[in-house]
Amino acid sequence: MNSQGAGRQPKYQRIADELKAAITAGEYGPGDRLPGENDLMATYVVARMTARQALSVLRSEGLVEARKGAGVFVRDFRPIRRHGTQRLAAGRWGEGRSVWSADTEDRELTVDSVSVTEESAPEGVARVLNLAEGSATCVRRRKYLLDGRPVLLATSYLDADIVAGTAITQPDTGPGGIYARLDEIGHKPVRFREEIRSRMPSAEETTLLALTPGTPVTLICRTAFAEDGHAVEVNDMVLDSSAYILEYDFDA
Amino acid sequence: MNSQGAGRQPKYQRIADELKAAITAGEYGPGDRLPGENDLMATYVVARMTARQALSVLRSEGLVEARKGAGVFVRDFRPIRRHGTQRLAAGRWGEGRSVWSADTEDRELTVDSVSVTEESAPEGVARVLNLAEGSATCVRRRKYLLDGRPVLLATSYLDADIVAGTAITQPDTGPGGIYARLDEIGHKPVRFREEIRSRMPSAEETTLLALTPGTPVTLICRTAFAEDGHAVEVNDMVLDSSAYILEYDFDA
Repeated sequence: MNSQGAGRQPKYQRIADELKAAITAGEYGPGDRLPGENDLMATYVVARMTARQALSVLRSEGLVEARKGAGVFVRDFRPIRRHGTQRLAAGRWGEGRSVWSADTEDRELTVDSVSVTEESAPEGVARVLNLAEGSATCVRRRKYLLDGRPVLLATSYLDADIVAGTAITQPDTGPGGIYARLDEIGHKPVRFREEIRSRMPSAEETTLLALTPGTPVTLICRTAFAEDGHAVEVNDMVLDSSAYILEYDFDA
Repeated sequence: MNSQGAGRQPKYQRIADELKAAITAGEYGPGDRLPGENDLMATYVVARMTARQALSVLRSEGLVEARKGAGVFVRDFRPIRRHGTQRLAAGRWGEGRSVWSADTEDRELTVDSVSVTEESAPEGVARVLNLAEGSATCVRRRKYLLDGRPVLLATSYLDADIVAGTAITQPDTGPGGIYARLDEIGHKPVRFREEIRSRMPSAEETTLLALTPGTPVTLICRTAFAEDGHAVEVNDMVLDSSAYILEYDFDA
């Protein structure tokens, strides 16, 4: 990218662009400390407010993060590559592996917390699962960590009548997870739909995922369908967007 | 969701939660004006700063948008459903339709601007297209509008040697677009990879997409592969996240 029309840009934007270029060129690597306000004021002969604005541009783009009292650091972006289309191939969970363990390739996602409750179906979920409003669903809420850092909140909804008495209603669903259990009771998932959005996090999501300011969340709503076309699970996922690259591979 | 531990929440958060619930319940629909600071101060008997914070929570979550001098309005979220996996089926572009026209189902994406230039390949693009660093690429930059509003910036990179002399180097690529032309010269795309991230927009993206504060961008990097496995196009897309739902359908 050329810096076109640089003369018409505000000063803070030009400084931000130079810092960005230096990050892209690797002069500042992940975890490195950027020049602070005082450094920028001296280097570019600008007011403190200008230096502050320049740094705030980088923060709002999620390139850097401020650590209290320590300065501004290049974000350590080592995202998880999540293979949407390959990950759920029957072979994987059929072999007793959990769907999620394939998410990280050689990196380990660990479950930080699981809660299993019975709740009446939220309206949208009831519609997709073809349940009457207010029907009982088995709700599994999980938080996943990568390298000790929370990266994913997942909430699965299943028809309580269908999964009653299975390990799906237990914190530990056993080898192969939910999908292997669904297979055993004749509701094998064979097709998936993933819907993706992104937005700024709620206060609760910011806390649960320990998000730094300027980090959006990516939402994946996954629906699993059985052979006859009925939906067997809706999984609402909230991802730390700085931790994930989602990948989908498909044929023309 | 229950409002758990409401007693421990700050006041502005409780007010924000109530307004959110009212939006979810449809009491305030898309485009409706929310109660302003003065209204909230009177209703909840709180200070102006508290009322302001409550509204700012909704803004930062992208639920509402402030319009200068007019108040705070529920965002008119009528997203485009973008079918990743079905959209690029050969039948579509084989029939002379542009890839993008299928994005909006019955809604029309229009091209606002197209520029076609020859530029040396950015490092990452060169690697994927298997070009020597600095090789010439044909770069197509487009901005797309939906209902007159900019929603998508797309930048395609193709090997300049391969596409030389074809309509791909022209603003109007002709019926079926880039992929139909690639087919004609023996580089038919048969497989696609889409990689998705989201982050806060740059200042330039905010301007080009006319983004309201608190709106992240969704990035899609699509690579098109020919039968022999070589990449023929890299398309870097920047989407207004509030305008899009991405959908991927696939089998287990």
